[in-house]
Amino acid sequence: MARTIKRRSKKAGLPPGTLVHIGERKVEKASVTCMVFDSETITESDISGLDACIPYKDRKTVTWINVVGLHQVEVLEKVGHCFGLHPLVLEDILNTDQRPKMEDYGDYIYIVLRMLENKGNVNGSGVMSEQVSIILGPNFVISLQERPDDEFDPVRDRLRGNKGRIRKMGADFLAYTLIDLVVDNYFAVLESLGETIEDIEDALVADPTPATVHSIHRMKREMIYLRKSVWPLREVISGLQRADTALVQPGTVIYLRDVYDHTIQAMDTVETYRDMLSGMLDIYLSSISNRMNEVMKVLTIIATIFIPLTFIVGVYGMNFEFMPELGARWGYPAVWLVMLAIVAGMLVYFRRKKWL
Amino acid sequence: MARTIKRRSKKAGLPPGTLVHIGERKVEKASVTCMVFDSETITESDISGLDACIPYKDRKTVTWINVVGLHQVEVLEKVGHCFGLHPLVLEDILNTDQRPKMEDYGDYIYIVLRMLENKGNVNGSGVMSEQVSIILGPNFVISLQERPDDEFDPVRDRLRGNKGRIRKMGADFLAYTLIDLVVDNYFAVLESLGETIEDIEDALVADPTPATVHSIHRMKREMIYLRKSVWPLREVISGLQRADTALVQPGTVIYLRDVYDHTIQAMDTVETYRDMLSGMLDIYLSSISNRMNEVMKVLTIIATIFIPLTFIVGVYGMNFEFMPELGARWGYPAVWLVMLAIVAGMLVYFRRKKWL
Amino acid sequence: MARTIKRRSKKAGLPPGTLVHIGERKVEKASVTCMVFDSETITESDISGLDACIPYKDRKTVTWINVVGLHQVEVLEKVGHCFGLHPLVLEDILNTDQRPKMEDYGDYIYIVLRMLENKGNVNGSGVMSEQVSIILGPNFVISLQERPDDEFDPVRDRLRGNKGRIRKMGADFLAYTLIDLVVDNYFAVLESLGETIEDIEDALVADPTPATVHSIHRMKREMIYLRKSVWPLREVISGLQRADTALVQPGTVIYLRDVYDHTIQAMDTVETYRDMLSGMLDIYLSSISNRMNEVMKVLTIIATIFIPLTFIVGVYGMNFEFMPELGARWGYPAVWLVMLAIVAGMLVYFRRKKWL
Amino acid sequence: MARTIKRRSKKAGLPPGTLVHIGERKVEKASVTCMVFDSETITESDISGLDACIPYKDRKTVTWINVVGLHQVEVLEKVGHCFGLHPLVLEDILNTDQRPKMEDYGDYIYIVLRMLENKGNVNGSGVMSEQVSIILGPNFVISLQERPDDEFDPVRDRLRGNKGRIRKMGADFLAYTLIDLVVDNYFAVLESLGETIEDIEDALVADPTPATVHSIHRMKREMIYLRKSVWPLREVISGLQRADTALVQPGTVIYLRDVYDHTIQAMDTVETYRDMLSGMLDIYLSSISNRMNEVMKVLTIIATIFIPLTFIVGVYGMNFEFMPELGARWGYPAVWLVMLAIVAGMLVYFRRKKWL
Amino acid sequence: MARTIKRRSKKAGLPPGTLVHIGERKVEKASVTCMVFDSETITESDISGLDACIPYKDRKTVTWINVVGLHQVEVLEKVGHCFGLHPLVLEDILNTDQRPKMEDYGDYIYIVLRMLENKGNVNGSGVMSEQVSIILGPNFVISLQERPDDEFDPVRDRLRGNKGRIRKMGADFLAYTLIDLVVDNYFAVLESLGETIEDIEDALVADPTPATVHSIHRMKREMIYLRKSVWPLREVISGLQRADTALVQPGTVIYLRDVYDHTIQAMDTVETYRDMLSGMLDIYLSSISNRMNEVMKVLTIIATIFIPLTFIVGVYGMNFEFMPELGARWGYPAVWLVMLAIVAGMLVYFRRKKWL
Repeated sequence: MARTIKRRSKKAGLPPGTLVHIGERKVEKASVTCMVFDSETITESDISGLDACIPYKDRKTVTWINVVGLHQVEVLEKVGHCFGLHPLVLEDILNTDQRPKMEDYGDYIYIVLRMLENKGNVNGSGVMSEQVSIILGPNFVISLQERPDDEFDPVRDRLRGNKGRIRKMGADFLAYTLIDLVVDNYFAVLESLGETIEDIEDALVADPTPATVHSIHRMKREMIYLRKSVWPLREVISGLQRADTALVQPGTVIYLRDVYDHTIQAMDTVETYRDMLSGMLDIYLSSISNRMNEVMKVLTIIATIFIPLTFIVGVYGMNFEFMPELGARWGYPAVWLVMLAIVAGMLVYFRRKKWL
Repeated sequence: MARTIKRRSKKAGLPPGTLVHIGERKVEKASVTCMVFDSETITESDISGLDACIPYKDRKTVTWINVVGLHQVEVLEKVGHCFGLHPLVLEDILNTDQRPKMEDYGDYIYIVLRMLENKGNVNGSGVMSEQVSIILGPNFVISLQERPDDEFDPVRDRLRGNKGRIRKMGADFLAYTLIDLVVDNYFAVLESLGETIEDIEDALVADPTPATVHSIHRMKREMIYLRKSVWPLREVISGLQRADTALVQPGTVIYLRDVYDHTIQAMDTVETYRDMLSGMLDIYLSSISNRMNEVMKVLTIIATIFIPLTFIVGVYGMNFEFMPELGARWGYPAVWLVMLAIVAGMLVYFRRKKWL
Repeated sequence: MARTIKRRSKKAGLPPGTLVHIGERKVEKASVTCMVFDSETITESDISGLDACIPYKDRKTVTWINVVGLHQVEVLEKVGHCFGLHPLVLEDILNTDQRPKMEDYGDYIYIVLRMLENKGNVNGSGVMSEQVSIILGPNFVISLQERPDDEFDPVRDRLRGNKGRIRKMGADFLAYTLIDLVVDNYFAVLESLGETIEDIEDALVADPTPATVHSIHRMKREMIYLRKSVWPLREVISGLQRADTALVQPGTVIYLRDVYDHTIQAMDTVETYRDMLSGMLDIYLSSISNRMNEVMKVLTIIATIFIPLTFIVGVYGMNFEFMPELGARWGYPAVWLVMLAIVAGMLVYFRRKKWL
Repeated sequence: MARTIKRRSKKAGLPPGTLVHIGERKVEKASVTCMVFDSETITESDISGLDACIPYKDRKTVTWINVVGLHQVEVLEKVGHCFGLHPLVLEDILNTDQRPKMEDYGDYIYIVLRMLENKGNVNGSGVMSEQVSIILGPNFVISLQERPDDEFDPVRDRLRGNKGRIRKMGADFLAYTLIDLVVDNYFAVLESLGETIEDIEDALVADPTPATVHSIHRMKREMIYLRKSVWPLREVISGLQRADTALVQPGTVIYLRDVYDHTIQAMDTVETYRDMLSGMLDIYLSSISNRMNEVMKVLTIIATIFIPLTFIVGVYGMNFEFMPELGARWGYPAVWLVMLAIVAGMLVYFRRKKWL
Repeated sequence: MARTIKRRSKKAGLPPGTLVHIGERKVEKASVTCMVFDSETITESDISGLDACIPYKDRKTVTWINVVGLHQVEVLEKVGHCFGLHPLVLEDILNTDQRPKMEDYGDYIYIVLRMLENKGNVNGSGVMSEQVSIILGPNFVISLQERPDDEFDPVRDRLRGNKGRIRKMGADFLAYTLIDLVVDNYFAVLESLGETIEDIEDALVADPTPATVHSIHRMKREMIYLRKSVWPLREVISGLQRADTALVQPGTVIYLRDVYDHTIQAMDTVETYRDMLSGMLDIYLSSISNRMNEVMKVLTIIATIFIPLTFIVGVYGMNFEFMPELGARWGYPAVWLVMLAIVAGMLVYFRRKKWL
């Protein structure tokens, strides 16, 4: 988190629209692929060179341009030039610490999402997030990622295989499909986090250690992070649904309502996890108190029984010349009897107090 | 909870509308029953075979189709085909981890509810929930459940017996009746949870143990779960009330207002229970502190009284050759007097401190 | 609370409008009184028999019918029949665990309030609540109570004595007067709770015991209960103010604004009490911690002083044959000096630590 | 707080508009002063007798009537009669536990404010509040106070000295000036509370005692109280700004916006103080825990070192006839060596644990 | 905080619009610089003397007047006179404890921002804030600061160098640029605070001390402070975006949306930091509890093992004449065996309890 913020400040004072990529360089070379399709035909090409603009405008087909790797600013500049993107859009694409948002620029809609991935290892979990920018135009979709992951492969397969209605519908349906994929991914992340939470809970019941608290807090922080990714998504999608624009067609709105539901469900789950983690912290603290209580009881029982006895044997360890009991035959057994009586009394007392 | 989420992720990447049942297979064979009625006649039939579509459209009667068991996807597909349901509706019916919602598809309204049941045993409680989907059309209602429970039997009886106004009114009143039944069921669940909470409270006053805390937390989690089922219901029903549709007639709106009130009341109860459980946790923690305090006092009183005495007897246990007290006649009784004085002083001190 | 809920579930599955009284039978026989008045005349009659409907409709007078005791369902049915009340209204009147609400049925407005009473005894407080239903028609008011309390007597006196403007104005003003009375009653209850809270607070400062915590929690629960009665009242009254109906005349709206203010004030007080009680719990917990701290200090001081001394005297209690100190003349006084020096050092140390 | 409520219940059952002053009698005799001014002339008079109504209506001047002392109900009745005030307004003026509100009665606006004063002494703080009612008519302002304080003197001086624009503008500007004065006073109170909070904070760092907790809680309660006075003020002033009335002229709205800002700022400060006080409570509790920890460590170190040593010397204090060590020359020094070794080991252990 | 408030109360009672600077005198002499530019030309001048008003009105150029140092009230008065500013605006400029706000005065918009700076030293952090007022007119911008910092230098450089579109666009774009600079500065402050938080977190894991708690609380207070600066900013900028005024041109609104996003992001970060700090406090408290637990265990183990042993050796230190064991050959070794058995039993017990 903090690290993300740090980079941002380097841009203070620069004119708006200055293109500086603030993320880490993640691939050697940016790759740009292009799929052009309608319900009958589909062509795929690698246009990383991108010498000339694609003459998408006059076509009735849908053009999907996928850019992977943002550190080569000149590639982005070319794309921006070809599709007439506003400098602020290009700036936002490069500032890869955006919160999810949707901006209607009239000719196109600019959408920022956060793709989540759980890079957790054995010791815990660590949710990584990558910014995915989607630009939805009348007959094109541009998607931009930092890392060459294969999250969009199912969509490519469905396009190639002409499965479902994806080839029959327009660019807005393609954009919906990509958003849907990102949101569906959240459930995979939430699942693995849910498993971690259950593991922590088992550990909490079995043997709560300070490490358990640290795990709970790490999960809580993950939840803060997730929440920041999921929460604004709701506005993004309801913004798309209500958008007073021809870019989103009525037939797609019903599908967006479906993604919206998923978003709410993801949010619900995040909130439930937060509540669960808070409850687990309470359990931990009360189990600590309980254990301390138990430790104190053991100490108190032992000390309360033996301290008076030690006093008594101390009395007859004194070296006074005139101690009549010392010379008595019954002295030693009598002391034992007294001491046993004391012990018995103590035990009764402790049992009444329910300490035993 | 977490388990529910897990299944969901298996669908990531599939085209929307793909029909996969994510619940457990709960009955051997899906059963489909059909009741057709108006104020004068009523016919019942089992149409699990469902060879041909029911010619409900031209009829003035109300058709109620009840589907139990969702794992036979082909049955659902037939129903969807006959009544012209949107693929997303069918998908949502099968994804049995939906939160309650209402969606207006123009020709029909799709409603998702969660039917609750308290499967709690002696050791605590365990609220199970089942997704109930209701599709309200102009003259038909389709209800879909996972498990062959008999929750809807009272409605069938009222239909058969022609009790109340259920036969005189349209499909919307039948849908209302089903929703009302689901909501009324919540009160039964809340009741049994309320009893469990009172039991825990009694245990808390009588003898708070770590198990009590675990019970409180289990109940708190049930409340989180219940809340997720009840809270969105409010929007569902107020959505039905305000729906700008001919499917819900003005005469039924007044009944929906009644269910709405019940929903608010159920929510109120859930919130009250949450508050009570939080208060019980506070009581537990303060009782733990109190007990620790008491334990410490006992230890402190015993130790504070006997440690100085043990020191004194230790002094006269020393083997110095020249200890004038040891040879004195009054030595031994004098030591006892001193020790009794110390004990008396201590007791006065403790009484002043209100420790005794 | 829980008990209230329990009864409700017995109605699950019955058709809406089925009249079953879910409260306890509180009077032997329902009593129905009727006051008919205008600015000049007033007549009172007991119409518990209620053979025929009162011909109120053609009159220009205001008719006030007060029903006490709801277990005789047939009385309510007659009233409902005479005034043309909706079955759901009658059902809600009998379900005496309603939350406050206002429902506009066109011809009349149905209002549910909760009349509070503090039945608290010496050991604490116990707020009881009774459901009061008010039906406001164009020239009649029907009020329904469970118990034969005399809360409405001041209104009767004002009607009989023709005090204030109550006889000069219409049915809506009468309804306002009844609501005002219920709300004014809240202040009496809040007062006595406020006194209890102050008593608890005094006890908290003087001598906090576990019983104090239980009192605080009992009061907190009362507040949860009160809140549920007062909070929805705000909506009820603002609903009446804004109601787009001829039943509430503009001249009365200004008075409703006044009751609304009182409601807000009652809510404010409830919230303030809640905040105060939370603060008192914090004080309790910190006073427990303080006391534990003090106990620990006493133990530590005593133990830390005497344990080393006991060790020293133990050393010279050993029976070695060759212990040169034992034979020395100065041995015994030297040991005393050493021990006094240790005590002095300890005391300086404790004073520096501010433990003494 | 509680006391204020108590008085209120005495009015339950009385007809609305009954004039009973529920505050304490604070001055011997009510005083009524009257200032009539326009931009050129100003006259002042004491009209406590108030035999006849002031013929303010036909004048173009602004009339400001200031009433101090509300227990002489007949004075208020006369004023109410002369200016045609609604009975509910008069009732609210006398019920001096109103929360701030603004009510538009068409011909005039009735405003209730709470004037705060910090009567705190050396031991803490105690914010007192007095109800100030302001009635703004087309060319008159009536202000009513309980106590003869001099808060409005600066306004009188500005009127007499014709400073600023107060004489040039209308009655609404005069009302604004009075409100502004009340709000400005809040900052003085907040200042002195802020100083007290800083003092408590210093005490918390230097030497936290149970008295510190009580101070924190007293301040928290003051904040609850202040909040109740300041919070509704926001609505009052924004209500005046938006009021659809000729009584507030556009030129004054800009000044009201300024008071509104001050109100927000006061609210902000109250919230900040609340946050600070909560934080201070946390610091207190954690410092208590720390101190307990330190006490426990001292006890544990002393006990852990000396208890084993005491055991060892006890061993050689036994009187068995056959204990070979006792007769050995090296016995006594060897025991000392063993004991020194144990002490050294313990010290190393404690240093590793960072207890020393 | 408290100090800021204090100064404010000195103004109570003064007529609105009285110009008194409540900040500290920070520079010797106020400096006023003026930049006049359009896309082709730019002139800079120092007009601290400000003898005559600048004839900016007839020009098509944009005039930017930057005032540093507010204690020379006469300078501000001249500026106010030249540009026709409302007295309340001048008053607000001098009251340098304003919360961020935007006020539309028709001819111009008055904006208050808070410029943050982290003056933190080695021991912690200390965020200072300075009030920056911006007045946006049709073809002029006036910016007013208290301190002669160089925050606006990047803008001057861009103006001089004609970088970006700043010279091509109007006064509203210049105002946007200044706001953008202020908001970008927040990220620098948040960064350094984020680093401090991470340092505290490391300290918390490594070695939590009471000083750590104080650091956490100091950071929490900084967050309260930051929040007060950032939160209202959101309204300021969305107010500018929605402003129904010709002063903000459509081309600039898109840039304001960008600043708005940054504000949201800053707010998000503040909230995240608050959550993190709360979590850290929880960790601290649970680590204190853990340590106390550990201390108690050590004490209990040592005491529980040795107290019984000490009792046993005490028994055989008694001086009774008739103690058969004392004369037995096997007496001494037998006691040792018994004691070893007790120790072994204790160790097994503690291992089962998982204390070892």
